[in-house]
Amino acid sequence: MSASVGRPPFYLGIDLGGTNVKSGVVDDAGQPRSSISIKTHADRGPEAGIATLAEAGRRAVEASGLSWDDIAAVGLGSPGTMDIAAGMLLDPPNLPGWQNLPIRDLLAERLGKPTVLQNDANAAAYGEYWTGAGKGVTSLVLFTLGTGVGGGIVERGRIIEGRHSHGGECGHIVIQMENGRQCGCGGYGHLEAYASATALVKRALEALEIADEETVLRKHLAAGRLSARSINEASLAGDPVAARLMRETAHYLAVGAVCMMHTINPDIILFAGGMSNAGPEFMELIRQGVKRMAFPLPASNTTIDYATLGEEAGYIGAAGCARMSFGTGATRDD
Amino acid sequence: MSASVGRPPFYLGIDLGGTNVKSGVVDDAGQPRSSISIKTHADRGPEAGIATLAEAGRRAVEASGLSWDDIAAVGLGSPGTMDIAAGMLLDPPNLPGWQNLPIRDLLAERLGKPTVLQNDANAAAYGEYWTGAGKGVTSLVLFTLGTGVGGGIVERGRIIEGRHSHGGECGHIVIQMENGRQCGCGGYGHLEAYASATALVKRALEALEIADEETVLRKHLAAGRLSARSINEASLAGDPVAARLMRETAHYLAVGAVCMMHTINPDIILFAGGMSNAGPEFMELIRQGVKRMAFPLPASNTTIDYATLGEEAGYIGAAGCARMSFGTGATRDD
Repeated sequence: MSASVGRPPFYLGIDLGGTNVKSGVVDDAGQPRSSISIKTHADRGPEAGIATLAEAGRRAVEASGLSWDDIAAVGLGSPGTMDIAAGMLLDPPNLPGWQNLPIRDLLAERLGKPTVLQNDANAAAYGEYWTGAGKGVTSLVLFTLGTGVGGGIVERGRIIEGRHSHGGECGHIVIQMENGRQCGCGGYGHLEAYASATALVKRALEALEIADEETVLRKHLAAGRLSARSINEASLAGDPVAARLMRETAHYLAVGAVCMMHTINPDIILFAGGMSNAGPEFMELIRQGVKRMAFPLPASNTTIDYATLGEEAGYIGAAGCARMSFGTGATRDD
Repeated sequence: MSASVGRPPFYLGIDLGGTNVKSGVVDDAGQPRSSISIKTHADRGPEAGIATLAEAGRRAVEASGLSWDDIAAVGLGSPGTMDIAAGMLLDPPNLPGWQNLPIRDLLAERLGKPTVLQNDANAAAYGEYWTGAGKGVTSLVLFTLGTGVGGGIVERGRIIEGRHSHGGECGHIVIQMENGRQCGCGGYGHLEAYASATALVKRALEALEIADEETVLRKHLAAGRLSARSINEASLAGDPVAARLMRETAHYLAVGAVCMMHTINPDIILFAGGMSNAGPEFMELIRQGVKRMAFPLPASNTTIDYATLGEEAGYIGAAGCARMSFGTGATRDD
């Protein structure tokens, strides 16, 4: 790949996860020129972590065929509580020992490039807005479905970061205030407590305790492979208990979508993460729930779909945030 | 009042309600120079309605001591479904016969001034942001408590209008997805179905059917004066049933606030409308609920309070929208 491929300037995106660090160089049009992944080794602590982030960035630039001088700025996406504006990690649950870490400035110093910090789900939302399923829209809401339910909101080209960097925590809206399930965060009745992969498996275990029907999920449980994926596969194969669990999950996600449609009212609502591999049937169930519950205008006109960038969304969006802060910008204002 | 009082340019705000039209001239710093109110007579239809809006504006300018030439632009706040960008009323429930009305352009033509249309609760939120309880903040969410529960969101100085003009419909988030109460809009489990004045009276009637306790609410009911106001007064006087109803109402509003704190995460959340006269005890109950349910950082740092502009918020905010569109702007960006 020669340096003439892709549109300069180029931005380096780094997506810090509890297990892996993904990184890639992205051109001015949002097209990745490289994509690499290395282990995070979060347990080695923040100093080693900064070195790992820098190493991931170095490898991504190398893989792109560009030189460091071609990189205009760096964007870092990270999980956990943070102060986005200050570039600080505060207390990330998946990165033990990384508390109160001025991660942005430490990384900027090591890389010698202007660097921005962003919440990882916000970055993914921005990636989808910039160059994924939301390309061309004015506003979008992204739900990321995994162990938890994350989210990101892009409104007229800008991420809603929030006053305390808690913008777009769409998994933690209360959808069941009375006798709500307990959430991973400790709260009650949150969307995440119903619709995450973890919650789906928990609900499956409860269903198996009371269900009289034949279901393949009992075999999966006995074999130690009861998971969101195996439940969805059983549902697609016609298993009645699994099908009911997936219908309920789609309903919960539709409730979450409706809440965002009645507050943000975006052009498009996207679902990403592991559960977004559940296929077109599951998406259709979400859409039906939305049509049933939302106000007529947004119900008929809001696009509800899966995200398209997959695991690339995080570093592409982080690169997009660097571009927005230090580069040529990416706001489609109305 | 002489024309030298207040800072030019001046903007005319008009707040169209089902019963009254309020209007006032507002200076460039958000200070009203006049405030008038006339009957809407919505039943006389849209043509007479446009004339009424124009008459309200004329009287407001007259009362301000300024001339028409001093008015830079006009902002109109209106209830009902609308297309804000197109300046159209679509199907406003409280304005029968005003469907599919290009109200903005009709009013602009009659007044000979550039005119913007805005949702009334959005306009009120913008008024509070510009010059009320939110003065100086970057972002706010306003809940308007009355027959229904409305809302408005201002984020980095811009109203979140939404793709289908349904932004900030904060009364219609789902807070109880299972066995939820039916809302005025027909949906189920919405915040409005729990926390509006209408819902409070309905819940009081239900409580009276099952409560064994002595309660003054029975007398109010018999005398035909069971209302949100009389329930709150009874609560403040120590009536146990009324106190429980008000505690529950505060809890519901706290749930709504938490949903907005975990998505918009604004600097400040405000409550306006009739129920906002419930006093400091009620606000303290809302605050306690928020502290119990929200994430630690926003729980400790988000200001939760009553709005301060009262019934002036609508036309002041509408004038502010005119200023934002045609005048000197009012965005405090971060």
